[in-house]
Amino acid sequence: MSRPKGFSREGVLRKAIGVFWKKGYADTSLQDIERATGVNKSGLYAEFRGKDDLFTEGLKFYLEQADTDALLSAQPLGLDNVERFLSLGLRCAYGSPGCLLVNSLREVAVLPPAVETLIRENRRKLRSALARNLEAALPSCDAKELADQVLTFFSGLTIEQNLATDERETRRKIASFMRLLRGQQGAAVDS
Amino acid sequence: MSRPKGFSREGVLRKAIGVFWKKGYADTSLQDIERATGVNKSGLYAEFRGKDDLFTEGLKFYLEQADTDALLSAQPLGLDNVERFLSLGLRCAYGSPGCLLVNSLREVAVLPPAVETLIRENRRKLRSALARNLEAALPSCDAKELADQVLTFFSGLTIEQNLATDERETRRKIASFMRLLRGQQGAAVDS
Repeated sequence: MSRPKGFSREGVLRKAIGVFWKKGYADTSLQDIERATGVNKSGLYAEFRGKDDLFTEGLKFYLEQADTDALLSAQPLGLDNVERFLSLGLRCAYGSPGCLLVNSLREVAVLPPAVETLIRENRRKLRSALARNLEAALPSCDAKELADQVLTFFSGLTIEQNLATDERETRRKIASFMRLLRGQQGAAVDS
Repeated sequence: MSRPKGFSREGVLRKAIGVFWKKGYADTSLQDIERATGVNKSGLYAEFRGKDDLFTEGLKFYLEQADTDALLSAQPLGLDNVERFLSLGLRCAYGSPGCLLVNSLREVAVLPPAVETLIRENRRKLRSALARNLEAALPSCDAKELADQVLTFFSGLTIEQNLATDERETRRKIASFMRLLRGQQGAAVDS
């Protein structure tokens, strides 16, 4: 019978995400994770292969929690889903601003290769899901091109959250961007 | 007569910028700067107060070189200036992708306070200069609101450069964003 490990994998991942979010990947040590989780190194190694694995599993867990698949496939498809996706940038589920994945873009050069793959795969899926919503709302536009605009705007919005922008300002920016998108409807119909 | 220091301040700043850009602020040590510049610690301390000062002065130098003031006050004011500003995100003057200032947003929480002030001040100036150009081109729109959109799009575009996006893709994104902006002209005239 294996000894009960005395901590939950999910609890460790949540706390590890908080540390990685605050300090970034490169600047986080296993000691930082030990301190934040209260689990010592041998406990962490019983569950994870090390810092790389903790970061990779943390990012996977974070993406599962965000569950953008469900959000972007809610019926009816359309601009409301796009707006709900952008509004994810407002949430600070882990007490930190913005989006852990966008923050991590800064560090792509030093991230474990598995993480870069995860980031690229996530962006590819988001782009397709956004394009389906945009196509439903703006059938005469280039939905993939607009999906790229939404993703880039989301990246900008969330990286700017590090400047502790107030929530109203972020909401104003999202509303203004949605007006630009909705304007496409008229523009496409006119042309 | 003071001993000649054997290195140029500008040369050190250029090389230091390259290191900070690649590794970020937190993860860069004075040893890294020594290695990159070939100037030892006592030489660096003769010119700078330390890592904080090197980063602050490096960022100032970088902003002077980019000279967005000149770019955004070129006559006639208008959307061409805005497009030229966005295209700055394509340049890799220091062999690294994107924009050092946007990359640094990730680290605002640990940056020297002088740098955070510098970043906020730079964004405030950019926003005003962009708004003047947008107002000239789209007099019936809310120029400040659109200036925020341009800044956020620029932040997103440059942070995404860390994924080694190819230049054509970035150019496509800029062209597509400019179409959204130019669409505002028609929209405002129609309404």
